[in-house]
Amino acid sequence: MSHAFDNKPEKAVQLSHGGGGKEMNKLIKEIFFKAFNNPILASEEDAAVLHLEGTTAFTTDSFTVAPLFFAGGNIGKLAVAGTVNDLAMMGAEPQYLSCSFIIEEGFPMTQLKQIVETMADELHKSSTRVVCGDTKVVPKGCADGLFINTSGVGRILCPNISVKNLQVGDAILVSGDIGRHGAAILMAREGLNLESELVSDCANLWPVVEQLIACNIDIHAMRDATRGGLAAVLNEWASASNIGITVEESKIPVSDEVKGLCELYGFEPHDLANEGTFIMALPLDVAQGALEIIKRYGNCEQAAIIGQVDDTHTGKVVLKTPWGSSRYLDLPHGELLPRIC
Amino acid sequence: MSHAFDNKPEKAVQLSHGGGGKEMNKLIKEIFFKAFNNPILASEEDAAVLHLEGTTAFTTDSFTVAPLFFAGGNIGKLAVAGTVNDLAMMGAEPQYLSCSFIIEEGFPMTQLKQIVETMADELHKSSTRVVCGDTKVVPKGCADGLFINTSGVGRILCPNISVKNLQVGDAILVSGDIGRHGAAILMAREGLNLESELVSDCANLWPVVEQLIACNIDIHAMRDATRGGLAAVLNEWASASNIGITVEESKIPVSDEVKGLCELYGFEPHDLANEGTFIMALPLDVAQGALEIIKRYGNCEQAAIIGQVDDTHTGKVVLKTPWGSSRYLDLPHGELLPRIC
Repeated sequence: MSHAFDNKPEKAVQLSHGGGGKEMNKLIKEIFFKAFNNPILASEEDAAVLHLEGTTAFTTDSFTVAPLFFAGGNIGKLAVAGTVNDLAMMGAEPQYLSCSFIIEEGFPMTQLKQIVETMADELHKSSTRVVCGDTKVVPKGCADGLFINTSGVGRILCPNISVKNLQVGDAILVSGDIGRHGAAILMAREGLNLESELVSDCANLWPVVEQLIACNIDIHAMRDATRGGLAAVLNEWASASNIGITVEESKIPVSDEVKGLCELYGFEPHDLANEGTFIMALPLDVAQGALEIIKRYGNCEQAAIIGQVDDTHTGKVVLKTPWGSSRYLDLPHGELLPRIC
Repeated sequence: MSHAFDNKPEKAVQLSHGGGGKEMNKLIKEIFFKAFNNPILASEEDAAVLHLEGTTAFTTDSFTVAPLFFAGGNIGKLAVAGTVNDLAMMGAEPQYLSCSFIIEEGFPMTQLKQIVETMADELHKSSTRVVCGDTKVVPKGCADGLFINTSGVGRILCPNISVKNLQVGDAILVSGDIGRHGAAILMAREGLNLESELVSDCANLWPVVEQLIACNIDIHAMRDATRGGLAAVLNEWASASNIGITVEESKIPVSDEVKGLCELYGFEPHDLANEGTFIMALPLDVAQGALEIIKRYGNCEQAAIIGQVDDTHTGKVVLKTPWGSSRYLDLPHGELLPRIC
């Protein structure tokens, strides 16, 4: 709502760019086809024609993050990484994405181009292609700048990964320090000009997951800790697998910047969103090997084993504090940070 | 922007319904899972696991129609029919949809339920299932009520249907009278209280396409005439297949209500959007048979052969008027009707 819009032709998106006629064709060809260039997209049929083999994972996400640009990324990077990661977390190779834009009339064409180019860069990290798309333009005031939906399909290489597959004795591993995406959005939104190193963890997780699969790591469950953070993932797992999970607070990696912002705003790091950090449950005896792979291929020096699966408090997550006490780590509730992704 | 919002708890969507925690889980289970009930969706993994066979069509569409409710449907019916139809137009059986909601804070829960139930009804018409989804809530003023994205996959039964496959001598057939969706939205938006029979043509086209395929009709090209209407489809075909198309204005079916609204507002029926009417190109000798199938299974008494493919004006569409003159039918341009779908 606060964009400095320039309505000169060619400089801003107009309603006619969503009309299904000449102007829309021009926008699609000059911006989207140019960035996402591939023969399936260029065929311009009503739907992309794909030759999929084996079992396929299918997922969707709409992105409404505010602001559109933040330390470590923008809505485009998020829209690609988010859907690619949902596929990767199922042990699926991210193959094809759809991409649908809802654009507010007057949105600057330069920003649209920049966002789309970021998407193309992020796609290359996992050889994923945008093969179909859609463009809608709504009148000024009917949307806040830009929303992006991406849906994705990919071939499942590891069929047993499941929210229902945690087993008593499994180690719980986190791939990096938590809460950075949530904290980066909070910082951008509040206009904080800290001399801060804090950037969102937003990243494409397929390269590191591909290595874990190639090394035959026996992954029981895997999930990126997005909205609701670490707390939401662990609670969903405990409930879906009907087991208990105990994690040690002192072992959960959190950067000083995220700790500081949490203290300032009254958040808990384990409730904050991540966009390139995942949680994994796997047999204890292979956890150390997995940790080494993650550190090596994921640029995640902070990766750590933070707890284990047990059968003493079924459906619940217990957090052991550094002072020896324990408490339940609940599913987050209330507003937290709206429009985090 | 003009909804009468009631912010009492349970009666309106709150920001916390998009937060990834307890409230979101409740909304998803009580509204979406209940309406779209199926085991793949209920598995609650990061992505749906599908067993697809053969060649797959993949498509996406975001729906931003205003108003959300109109004569003949609502945004939910449109979101299902639109994506199902994109698959059907490729000769693909619509199998699985994703469904992603962007909801404005304060949106009435009763309207959300009504829209989702309409979606479920429309899905049953083609045995299509919603297998994955996403819910985002944005603060009041950051979206206009509700936007829905649906993406879809389906098995291609007719592999040769293509925008590039029109051949000289082909007949051009339209499945019903044109322009009704555009006209119905215009009527709803202008608050016209005509004693009118006019309703949107919004409909799931798979049942009739399934019959055409079952009867081995040799379909060369097929497309639903959505944004940009008949004029956009014919121009895209002429350009992509490098042929000419000639249509006779007197043979194009248009209802009296649509004609009247077009005269009043200065539109052309062939530029107006349809959401359940398609254009087909096929060999002249099977066109009459196809017409009979469409009339029988599509409830489309108005279906008609309106023209043919030729090689005299490559890349162009010629409209023959009832007075014997001819003119080029161009791709629509300018604003037409924003937020038609």
